[in-house]
Amino acid sequence: MKKPIFYHAGCSVCVSAEHDIINLMGADNVEIVHLGNDRSKIAEAEKAGIQSVPALVTSNGNVLHINFGASMEDVKK
Amino acid sequence: MKKPIFYHAGCSVCVSAEHDIINLMGADNVEIVHLGNDRSKIAEAEKAGIQSVPALVTSNGNVLHINFGASMEDVKK
Repeated sequence: MKKPIFYHAGCSVCVSAEHDIINLMGADNVEIVHLGNDRSKIAEAEKAGIQSVPALVTSNGNVLHINFGASMEDVKK
Repeated sequence: MKKPIFYHAGCSVCVSAEHDIINLMGADNVEIVHLGNDRSKIAEAEKAGIQSVPALVTSNGNVLHINFGASMEDVKK
């Protein structure tokens, strides 16, 4: 099964949610992508349907937008 | 450790997120509260800091608002 991917952009809302997600799911069970540091992944995130970060893409491709840190437009700036 | 609680109100966004959360965390690791069916829990949810459903309250009390189904005001109607 494909590993869920947690996308974030390093904002305080994102970092807090990242800690919660890792606590809930276990660090080995989720891939973390920091779009601020790895900008080549922005297109991949948008293709997955992500509209804002932080967000979690589940194994079956569903997108769970969590709280609200930054829009994808803000991430691109 | 206190079990995380997933609050929802039976809307389609909620049900989809509920399936995702159970798949991610395992059914035994999260308590599910349906605020539409169990309206006595609405006050508890608000006290926990929930502003909209679906939302997950983590073991340490953080609230993760997931996607956006309905505001707490809508749930009360």
